[in-house]
Amino acid sequence: MKLISYKPKEIPGDFRMGLMVNGEVYDLQESYRKAIGVGKGVPLQRSMPTDPASFYRLGKDVLNLAHQAERYLKDTEETPISKDLIELGTPVPAPSKIICIGKNYAAHAEEMKGEVPDYPVLFAKFRNALIGPADDIEKPAATNKLDYEVELGVVIGSEATNVQREDALQYIAGYTIGNDISARDLQKRTPQWLQGKTLDRSTPIGPWVVTADELEDPSNLAVCTFVNGEKRQESSTSHLIFDIPQLINFISSLITLEPGDIILTGTPDGVGVAMDPPHFLKDGDVVRLEIEQIGSMENRVREV
Amino acid sequence: MKLISYKPKEIPGDFRMGLMVNGEVYDLQESYRKAIGVGKGVPLQRSMPTDPASFYRLGKDVLNLAHQAERYLKDTEETPISKDLIELGTPVPAPSKIICIGKNYAAHAEEMKGEVPDYPVLFAKFRNALIGPADDIEKPAATNKLDYEVELGVVIGSEATNVQREDALQYIAGYTIGNDISARDLQKRTPQWLQGKTLDRSTPIGPWVVTADELEDPSNLAVCTFVNGEKRQESSTSHLIFDIPQLINFISSLITLEPGDIILTGTPDGVGVAMDPPHFLKDGDVVRLEIEQIGSMENRVREV
Repeated sequence: MKLISYKPKEIPGDFRMGLMVNGEVYDLQESYRKAIGVGKGVPLQRSMPTDPASFYRLGKDVLNLAHQAERYLKDTEETPISKDLIELGTPVPAPSKIICIGKNYAAHAEEMKGEVPDYPVLFAKFRNALIGPADDIEKPAATNKLDYEVELGVVIGSEATNVQREDALQYIAGYTIGNDISARDLQKRTPQWLQGKTLDRSTPIGPWVVTADELEDPSNLAVCTFVNGEKRQESSTSHLIFDIPQLINFISSLITLEPGDIILTGTPDGVGVAMDPPHFLKDGDVVRLEIEQIGSMENRVREV
Repeated sequence: MKLISYKPKEIPGDFRMGLMVNGEVYDLQESYRKAIGVGKGVPLQRSMPTDPASFYRLGKDVLNLAHQAERYLKDTEETPISKDLIELGTPVPAPSKIICIGKNYAAHAEEMKGEVPDYPVLFAKFRNALIGPADDIEKPAATNKLDYEVELGVVIGSEATNVQREDALQYIAGYTIGNDISARDLQKRTPQWLQGKTLDRSTPIGPWVVTADELEDPSNLAVCTFVNGEKRQESSTSHLIFDIPQLINFISSLITLEPGDIILTGTPDGVGVAMDPPHFLKDGDVVRLEIEQIGSMENRVREV
């Protein structure tokens, strides 16, 4: 199942949960109501939240209800919402944490002149950075060294404390694509990376969350980045130093993960700062990310 | 005005906003209703949120309503809530960001063998770390080097982007005390400090938020730490390398600050890891923090 958030274009207001079925967009709550027959005399037993923050907080129960809606849409001929009328938002806009993993591909650790770490390197982003899958990546004047990083994103589905590796995948709601946009000059001017990692409206997440039932094995997915059509990053999640079960085991031994939290699992080699000469993102550049079994996401860079 | 969050002891449920007036506890919403005369024929024109997350998100408007409630309580003889029946929570439990400043006192940068930074060093905590002013600091088995850090906490009162230094204090709702508890072993085992800084239920914030109208000049406040009665840290916010207007100017040029966000402004010298030999916190230790014009906060360390 592909979970999205969307809203009508040019109308202010909140994003709603939606589903992508056979390439078409449907509202999640409306589809769920139809699926269970509300309006045909069936009372609404369980309500389906419309906003993504509530949806992910409610965890696996509500994911099961969403599956009911998806099955209904696959079995019937409901009219989809015209894609021309809507914009997609970041599918998980209000995580209580965004935990990023640094140097989690050996070839990337090497190109950044870093050691392969003994423990996962954890750092943070805040939600001010998040943008939707078709939004522009904002480049403020404060940086001249903006760079891309394709990453497999894990969305947590249920509260996770001290989770064993073999159980870890059960705590995942789904997977998405993240571009861990990094202002290399700001990232490196102090010992801590945060200020280069959480610029306002810098970090696209999307285009949707593919639920874990549909993507059962995240350990061997091709990941790529193209800038203006030129391939820059090409790897596979099979090269992760700390794989997803290890990351959830490690993080949850220190930090309780909550439904809707996002883990960005690290980027492979091929980032712009490591090219010779370095290539940084500039106004008008188009960054396209692809991850196998999830899809692709394309964002333009815009100076602000 | 002193803003608290509280709930009846041993009853599960949510914390409510409260006020501390002349050392006594009052419920904020109830006091506001009495102040404007609801129940005596006056309709409720404006509602006062009971939960701290909504309260701080609403920004300065709702702070003004709270002042009405405080004036009413000072002018009348309302019965306070018995302190024996309640527990205090962290006054700002759901910030969208907790931004901490590293090495912001020269004497602390020196004892940690670090340089005085050219730019503020920003790093993150997440809300899983927050506990109330009387809660135990949890020490997991994962660390043997748990350490205290007294810090002046700034609570943001209105959305702040590209704020000039001379305007910065206007964006502050109030001030509090934070103990930026740090697991030195976890903090230093990778290049990024996050994993040592955001352990579950490690970080007391409180005991209240003193609103900015009552604490007009945060630039010269005495700060101290005592461990089991022994003085360990003693300094003044006058020694901050980057003062509060500079921090808000710097952060808001990169990252939009939202109402309810917390900035922990850094700790002075005297931390346990820098003692000879180092002294770390152990089960049963009592850490007392004091900041002038705010108050004090005492927490016991408990192995979990």
